[in-house]
Amino acid sequence: MNKKGIWLLNDIKPEHLERLKELAPDHELVNRDDDFPIENIEIVYGWDKIKAEEAGLLETEGQLKWIQVASAGVDYMDLDTLNERSILLTNASGIHSVPIAESVIGMLLAYCRKIQQAVVDQSQHHWREDQRLIELSEKTIMIVGTGNIGKELGRLSKAFNMKTIGINRSGREVEYMDHIFRQPDMIDHLKKADVVVNILPLTSETKAFFDHKMFAEMKEGTLFINVGRGPTVNTEDLIQALDDGKVSFAGLDVFETEPLPENSPLWDRKDVLVTPHISGNAEHYNTRLFNIFEENIQAFVEGEELPRNLVDYDKSY
Amino acid sequence: MNKKGIWLLNDIKPEHLERLKELAPDHELVNRDDDFPIENIEIVYGWDKIKAEEAGLLETEGQLKWIQVASAGVDYMDLDTLNERSILLTNASGIHSVPIAESVIGMLLAYCRKIQQAVVDQSQHHWREDQRLIELSEKTIMIVGTGNIGKELGRLSKAFNMKTIGINRSGREVEYMDHIFRQPDMIDHLKKADVVVNILPLTSETKAFFDHKMFAEMKEGTLFINVGRGPTVNTEDLIQALDDGKVSFAGLDVFETEPLPENSPLWDRKDVLVTPHISGNAEHYNTRLFNIFEENIQAFVEGEELPRNLVDYDKSY
Repeated sequence: MNKKGIWLLNDIKPEHLERLKELAPDHELVNRDDDFPIENIEIVYGWDKIKAEEAGLLETEGQLKWIQVASAGVDYMDLDTLNERSILLTNASGIHSVPIAESVIGMLLAYCRKIQQAVVDQSQHHWREDQRLIELSEKTIMIVGTGNIGKELGRLSKAFNMKTIGINRSGREVEYMDHIFRQPDMIDHLKKADVVVNILPLTSETKAFFDHKMFAEMKEGTLFINVGRGPTVNTEDLIQALDDGKVSFAGLDVFETEPLPENSPLWDRKDVLVTPHISGNAEHYNTRLFNIFEENIQAFVEGEELPRNLVDYDKSY
Repeated sequence: MNKKGIWLLNDIKPEHLERLKELAPDHELVNRDDDFPIENIEIVYGWDKIKAEEAGLLETEGQLKWIQVASAGVDYMDLDTLNERSILLTNASGIHSVPIAESVIGMLLAYCRKIQQAVVDQSQHHWREDQRLIELSEKTIMIVGTGNIGKELGRLSKAFNMKTIGINRSGREVEYMDHIFRQPDMIDHLKKADVVVNILPLTSETKAFFDHKMFAEMKEGTLFINVGRGPTVNTEDLIQALDDGKVSFAGLDVFETEPLPENSPLWDRKDVLVTPHISGNAEHYNTRLFNIFEENIQAFVEGEELPRNLVDYDKSY
């Protein structure tokens, strides 16, 4: 019988490779471009849509049982097919909490402390001293999505003396949130928020969740941040809200279309900060991802359930 | 006898003016440009060097007993003359803690989370996704100056899971600092720091405190922030340290000469973030300043010692 394979589509450090050999001695470790019978791949570490399609991974009736992706969101995966074929999917939820929460605070401070404007002024050697700056302290932040990232952001927000409102599906209590409301009730509480941060995953329920109806209920001059998924926000409606003054600043790391098209009106707006889907990028990313994979593979070879970050196909995340 | 006057050289809100009338009913409140005998001015709220000189305030043998300035640093005041004439000086120390600490974190995140670069890229419609970002989490920050601002910065740094080293003159323990070292010993501990933040006031001891000797002892790739006073850093030596890679990023809010001269090489450096001495600017600035003044004037009219922010002429701050 041929050995089963673990296809390595994410970068892996040499020491992690050694550890993997110890943990799964009966598996063959297959590099991205290695010649190996695709039907024998049982586990995939990381994801590369083009590579997988070229190899016909999902089209082959083979050994495939589990894919560990490197992202928190899994909207780009063919969840129906995976579900039908009973292929397990684990995501990287949690490893982005610290970097994304730091990026959100960074984007907010770039606005409040006029750092974004200072960078523009610096390029023109323009010294502009007499300015009114605002602070995060004492503002109210509404965090839409209270998973790992939302909780970490709540923790930091409390440290900045902000009031925190968390929004989730069930209304369950979450640490660091002064108040929690259910997603359907969110619109009734938007006026309390000075800052609204979207961390929603993309599902059929959340597509264009932030639309003109939602923006219309915001307080005049709201700061809006999107580090969730681009299509959860209707870009046209957001631009209208900026023009109307409902939103006075939008810090956007994700977009309906990525890369953001060259002719997007977002690029040239002074009230928009565009970051190129990098808020989750982190120094210790590969190590943190391997830590999740390591725990899971120990369980997998023992025939146990995967303990970390198993995607629930009913919820799509 | 003529009434003694309080000269209002700082903006004051109508409600604070009313409060001041209650607190000092025997004083005349003198607006910036009012015609009033200068020798009868007993208290000055705020400072305006040109106004004071035009009026001959310090040259007149009059009633002047106390000046409440709106800044934390008082290096621009003629301390020797004030000391000789036994004129009390109170500063605005403390009201800048929150805004400056927020600005420091904002500058650090602008570097670590590539927000500064994103702003530059945005102006060129340049989408640059594949980047390595770093985090504040787990870095070591050395906070040089552990007064109100340093303490607030220490508090926020701990919330970001940073290790904190505080530097002060006495070596006294300060909340939120994992370690404290005395100023003369600082150079021996610089290599432990990933981030060095200068919050020193300008005194004869601190002029050019950060010079080539100091930079030479830093770890390769240190992030350096100056929100203290410009002349506490030797700019040429800093530029050399940037060129040498000792400092990989400098976030500067203060400069040897302000406004920063048009031909300064700092403007065009990508490894420098220039902000125009705005890190102390705050939303509730005038209210916080008045709160200090209010406490002090209550004591003053009772003939008691000024309880808030009295400058010690021996220390020059």
